[in-house]
Amino acid sequence: MQPRRFAWVEKVLKEITPKSSDFSQWYVDVIRKADMVDYAPMKGFMVMKPYSYRIWEFIQEQMDRRFKATGHQNAYFPLLIPEHLLAQEEEHIEGFSAEVAWVTMGGNEQLAERLAIRPTSETIIGAMYAQWIHSYRDLPVLINQWANVLRWEKATRPFLRTTEFLWQEGHTVHRTADEALAETLQQLEIYREVIEEYLAVPVIAGVKSAGERFAGAVDTYTLEALMGDGRALQSATSHFLGQHFSKAFQIQYLDEDGELKYGWTSSWGSSTRLIGAVIMVHGDDKGLRLPPKIAPIQVVIVPIGKGAEREAVVAHAKALEAQLANAFRVKLDDRDEFTPGYKFNDWEMRGVPLRVELGPKDLAKQQVVLARRDTGEKLSVSESQLVETVQHLLDAIQSELFRQALEFRESHTMSVESYQEMAQNGYRGFFRGDWCGSETCADHLKAETGMTIRCLPFNEEPVTGHCIVCGQTSRYRALFARAY
Amino acid sequence: MQPRRFAWVEKVLKEITPKSSDFSQWYVDVIRKADMVDYAPMKGFMVMKPYSYRIWEFIQEQMDRRFKATGHQNAYFPLLIPEHLLAQEEEHIEGFSAEVAWVTMGGNEQLAERLAIRPTSETIIGAMYAQWIHSYRDLPVLINQWANVLRWEKATRPFLRTTEFLWQEGHTVHRTADEALAETLQQLEIYREVIEEYLAVPVIAGVKSAGERFAGAVDTYTLEALMGDGRALQSATSHFLGQHFSKAFQIQYLDEDGELKYGWTSSWGSSTRLIGAVIMVHGDDKGLRLPPKIAPIQVVIVPIGKGAEREAVVAHAKALEAQLANAFRVKLDDRDEFTPGYKFNDWEMRGVPLRVELGPKDLAKQQVVLARRDTGEKLSVSESQLVETVQHLLDAIQSELFRQALEFRESHTMSVESYQEMAQNGYRGFFRGDWCGSETCADHLKAETGMTIRCLPFNEEPVTGHCIVCGQTSRYRALFARAY
Ligand SMILES: [Zn+2]
Ligand SMILES: [Zn+2]
Repeated sequence: MQPRRFAWVEKVLKEITPKSSDFSQWYVDVIRKADMVDYAPMKGFMVMKPYSYRIWEFIQEQMDRRFKATGHQNAYFPLLIPEHLLAQEEEHIEGFSAEVAWVTMGGNEQLAERLAIRPTSETIIGAMYAQWIHSYRDLPVLINQWANVLRWEKATRPFLRTTEFLWQEGHTVHRTADEALAETLQQLEIYREVIEEYLAVPVIAGVKSAGERFAGAVDTYTLEALMGDGRALQSATSHFLGQHFSKAFQIQYLDEDGELKYGWTSSWGSSTRLIGAVIMVHGDDKGLRLPPKIAPIQVVIVPIGKGAEREAVVAHAKALEAQLANAFRVKLDDRDEFTPGYKFNDWEMRGVPLRVELGPKDLAKQQVVLARRDTGEKLSVSESQLVETVQHLLDAIQSELFRQALEFRESHTMSVESYQEMAQNGYRGFFRGDWCGSETCADHLKAETGMTIRCLPFNEEPVTGHCIVCGQTSRYRALFARAY
Repeated sequence: MQPRRFAWVEKVLKEITPKSSDFSQWYVDVIRKADMVDYAPMKGFMVMKPYSYRIWEFIQEQMDRRFKATGHQNAYFPLLIPEHLLAQEEEHIEGFSAEVAWVTMGGNEQLAERLAIRPTSETIIGAMYAQWIHSYRDLPVLINQWANVLRWEKATRPFLRTTEFLWQEGHTVHRTADEALAETLQQLEIYREVIEEYLAVPVIAGVKSAGERFAGAVDTYTLEALMGDGRALQSATSHFLGQHFSKAFQIQYLDEDGELKYGWTSSWGSSTRLIGAVIMVHGDDKGLRLPPKIAPIQVVIVPIGKGAEREAVVAHAKALEAQLANAFRVKLDDRDEFTPGYKFNDWEMRGVPLRVELGPKDLAKQQVVLARRDTGEKLSVSESQLVETVQHLLDAIQSELFRQALEFRESHTMSVESYQEMAQNGYRGFFRGDWCGSETCADHLKAETGMTIRCLPFNEEPVTGHCIVCGQTSRYRALFARAY
């Protein structure tokens, strides 16, 4: 069977562009070969196949549990938003107007007013909250929505930039600015926890500069991650909206002191783009590497052997599968049309964290061979130790992926005193530098280098005292990168 | 505080129209007062507030678990469908064309081809399946999608008929007709199990007559439930699509014998309309009555007492809440701005199955009073027996609601030998009668009485041998009703 195996290896490797030679093409190759997405017949749209949707379900489960534990409830608001509502908050419509898909006909009739497919739901939700909130006793309102949204995009990149995507959007109203801000930061921390502990993607938390804020926000807080090509990905955002939307939509409450006051609102969102982060942070030339906590299949069992021997091996593999299934997401690959080598490559491509190999010799010795996807290490384990070893290795792989990602990020982060220094790394990686706070400098930097201010990381102060662009007095320490 | 309590009671009762006097108005009153939905600013659209969305989450959880256990995986397909794709299956587009909302502009540009917001996804999914399926080894394909869909409706009725609604739609492809049919019926049985065991709504399973079939189906299987006003609600459907869609979309596979063959497909769906069924089957003049298994709050604790006494009662109520929270969805209503009487009415309106009343006297005796929402019965229970009694009562309420609904249905079902007999019940309820199989008779009946054939129930044979409309030889035993 060896020839067939090698032929396949060659074929697979030919089909995946090496990560180092063309990261962009590698990304597209991997998500297609790992069966995560397909392109829909309409430009800009993709289909999330079961293998990627399952990852989304794990992310949803973790996020949703934490939202509920912090007092939030889910609800569902309409997909369509009348044009006049979308336009009610000035900065908001300016930010989104170019990206909106419009419904102009319903049931064979031309509509009197165009309806926008929601690009985000602050406006329709704000209009409803204005109806629901009367008294301070009605506050806080803590609601989240799992939904699809549309933003008409020129360029498409599965998970990262598609016309339609899935997300959750939380929308809250509070009695005071302090409470709204505390909510905004609490939700950012929930995102950090899920992204770092489940997706094994290290993030840097901070606040956006004015030029990078959500349209209509007072402040946008963000988690920035570094991808394998040295570009940044904004992984989740949480917005302190002040009273912008409550004033635009008349979200008012009668306070305990008898005065009518505007509420303070927040919104926060995370999306299927997180799956893109997992791929770009952990993937390698063999394909995906999935963190065990969100892997649809954590352990794959590949039986090895021919003829009568094979039958005994497969029968025993089924028993192992049943045993492991009590504690893990396990799959037995007993397809007889493929060689073990083909299967090894196939499941490595799909990023399954751990492979169990079982052949006639192993059977005789009552052992199996375990192969780690993250390091490639192999070890023989006696069957009596299997369950605990698998648990131990899955934990180790989860930690190792995070460690590798953190190491990569740290080795691709440099401090600069002037923006010209960024060129030496080909503008790849995170750059830390001082910034004067002027949008002119930010715009100049972007035009000249493509670098943007990803955030002003929490708890950091100016270092040199001089803006890396203009040299003037620096007010902030900023994190710069080229971004998705 | 008594006067305030009575004033409120009167106010509540005035605001809910009695079920018997105007069922339709009662329905709308209840869902508004129980805080389940609100109307959106656009005609035809509603907002699902947290209290109803939570019920949807419980339904989702039960359905999804069963879908996965039977080998299905979730995926996500685009919201928008190009017009040419939607039109590719002839009967399908005929059935849906009048209900479609069209996107004609994206990002300030007029689109070359209109995009339909999915009214259902057979077409876009069919187009994708044609790409994915090549060999018999790729079959079966067993995929489900949780999604929003739009059908432009003239009349609106929350949960039952709204322009947008949430649902799940399963879409499968099989090698043989038998397998596809088995899948269709298996999914119908999953629906029956969840609807009867969780929603406590009894259903009658059967096949639709040709005139009532899903557009494009060979056969549509259905579960029909009887609402409190004697009208039927189609609660879930499962369609055997034969090769209609596989031929329209070229879903073909190379079989083991080397021949290229068309796949056999099924689709099946259930939606938020099920929440409407729960309301209409179980509700009464006091409001909702929720089956414990899907009640967002299963037990509400209302402390009773004033001044210093009240403090001790509330403190103890908190301890009870913590104890019950280990096993049940429990809420302590310790709002101090409302009287206990107000709260009793409020939670009865919201259909909470069980109320725990705790006053100073109960405290002294180490007991509580339990009040059942379904029967109104009250009983004193010692605290040491509380958890097991609550469990026992919730089980009893779940059964009792189903029993009452079944009894109502049986007492509102009559057999008729001619359709004129239906008039004596004011066309309320289910009618069983023979049918010749001619659509002319079905159309005549509908035009004259508003009654439609809900289904041809499984395992039933003609009884009189004569069609209730034309008197000709009957081929079927049918279930008739006016329907939502
Ligand atoms: Zn500057
Ligand atoms: Zn007839």
